[in-house]
Amino acid sequence: MKQRRTIVITMGDPKGIGPEVIVKALASDEIRKLADGFTFLVVGSSKALSEAARIAKADCQPAILKMPEIPSAESNNIFLYEPVPADKSHSGLDYILSGIEAMSAKAAALVTAPVSKNAIRKSGCDFIGHTELLAQKTLSRKVTMMFTAPKLIVSLVTRHIAYKKVLLYLTTERILNTIEQTDEGLRKYLGIAQPRIAVCGLNPHSGEGRAFGNEESRIVEPAIKLANEKKINCSGPFPADSIFHRAIKGEFDAVVALYHDQGLIPIKTMAFNKAVQVTLGLPFIRTSPAHGAAYDIAGKGIANPASMIEAIKLAAAMASQSGSLFGNN
Amino acid sequence: MKQRRTIVITMGDPKGIGPEVIVKALASDEIRKLADGFTFLVVGSSKALSEAARIAKADCQPAILKMPEIPSAESNNIFLYEPVPADKSHSGLDYILSGIEAMSAKAAALVTAPVSKNAIRKSGCDFIGHTELLAQKTLSRKVTMMFTAPKLIVSLVTRHIAYKKVLLYLTTERILNTIEQTDEGLRKYLGIAQPRIAVCGLNPHSGEGRAFGNEESRIVEPAIKLANEKKINCSGPFPADSIFHRAIKGEFDAVVALYHDQGLIPIKTMAFNKAVQVTLGLPFIRTSPAHGAAYDIAGKGIANPASMIEAIKLAAAMASQSGSLFGNN
Repeated sequence: MKQRRTIVITMGDPKGIGPEVIVKALASDEIRKLADGFTFLVVGSSKALSEAARIAKADCQPAILKMPEIPSAESNNIFLYEPVPADKSHSGLDYILSGIEAMSAKAAALVTAPVSKNAIRKSGCDFIGHTELLAQKTLSRKVTMMFTAPKLIVSLVTRHIAYKKVLLYLTTERILNTIEQTDEGLRKYLGIAQPRIAVCGLNPHSGEGRAFGNEESRIVEPAIKLANEKKINCSGPFPADSIFHRAIKGEFDAVVALYHDQGLIPIKTMAFNKAVQVTLGLPFIRTSPAHGAAYDIAGKGIANPASMIEAIKLAAAMASQSGSLFGNN
Repeated sequence: MKQRRTIVITMGDPKGIGPEVIVKALASDEIRKLADGFTFLVVGSSKALSEAARIAKADCQPAILKMPEIPSAESNNIFLYEPVPADKSHSGLDYILSGIEAMSAKAAALVTAPVSKNAIRKSGCDFIGHTELLAQKTLSRKVTMMFTAPKLIVSLVTRHIAYKKVLLYLTTERILNTIEQTDEGLRKYLGIAQPRIAVCGLNPHSGEGRAFGNEESRIVEPAIKLANEKKINCSGPFPADSIFHRAIKGEFDAVVALYHDQGLIPIKTMAFNKAVQVTLGLPFIRTSPAHGAAYDIAGKGIANPASMIEAIKLAAAMASQSGSLFGNN
């Protein structure tokens, strides 16, 4: 039997739907099919996982690990590591930090269940978001938040920035970086040899010849030109209202959106339950379901695991595509 | 035979795809079915219409009118009025102005094919857009631009405004007005007795408890509160990335979007070819296909008439719903 690689799954906030979507995903046929190539290491609360399994009527009997390490037992497919609670911390945050430890031990990919930024902040910890924390802890200077839906891939130039502050962050350099990391990510992890990337304009109708704003010619076009000089096949800026339709129809492999809602509206409108978040630019593969902790439905057994299933499947596919660069064998 | 009501269709820029989508729509089974209740008065170029009919291989033999009036002939279903070209004008603009004249003669609805703002401006005429011109000429102080797709209705609070200027236009009063006109429009023209309206937030995650921006509590919430005091069933502000999915699933009848791309991205991504624009707040019904003049494919016979067909069908449905308030009988 070939040695299996490990996908680390952090539980997120144990009071959210994380434990439930994890047990439902691990019990699903789609994820069971991956057992030949992968083991799964859940980092989180043993109690929350058992309780979620009971509520979801799913079978989930993980082997317990004492360290966030790569499991070596061949008999089991699912493992659990529960970190010792840190003082003045939030368990959702502890799980992420232990997940990063497991990644430094060369797991194949990290999948993170949702936390609530507010809940972590209320516990007294500084926390901007998963993506920012992962970038900081891995000393990754530039990262790109990308989202996938069944026929659409979208990368964001700016993330959780207030509407009125987006223009402060929207620079030619950041747009170029997003184009480059998207191009690299599609080649390296998704097997697209020559990615075709579309870039959104900022204003209605992409400014309609500077009639409504000039950021297209001032900020976006120079980034596209620089990317083209680096032999990246990208074009635009295109009116944001029609470009996603064109990408879905097959004209482009990915769309670079300039701000959060510009990219997330089409992803979540098209594929609410199957959207997956990917972080590019980290030293390892990281995916995540695109939904939040959903406290309002937690513990009721009604959480939909589709996005978590897609996140694990994508992590496995990316790990397989990237070959020996990652993984423990 | 009962007297038929007239739908006026302005050709838009005769060099765009307007003439082609009009002849294709009028020749379609879906629009022919309306012939029992409606006649169609095309305002535009006779030559462009014949040429489009030739290219589209569609039969279109309109009876010629000498004034933009309500046709009285019972034998014909399609009429054409060609305005005398004005000095220093653009024919697309002339057609709209004559279309408004026909509306003042109590036609049932106005459907406008696309013009290009730039082309009209280049001809030396001041022109912000169809909606603004119609509002100005009919002395309508407040109008709302609404879009429909098969399972989604979206109204815009701000229209063709540069990204960075949106905040200057986004007031509680304008949001309230959009909610009110949307509520009224759904009741009056779409037969929805108790419309359920969702309002978008401005910032990512609707500000996530003011973590990214405070416009939700400062500007949007007061508008919702005022609307509720007027017995309008509206709620929010909701994160814009997930609210359209909820509306499509049936939780809301319409979504109020705060800026152009916030509302148009979901409409065009979901229903690129079937999106229809509606103007609420005019003294008459006005619809329009949601696409532009598309000069790049004009004259090639490949323009898709689906959006024009939907625009005419919606105009007819709205005219029927609104009953005797409009129309010539």
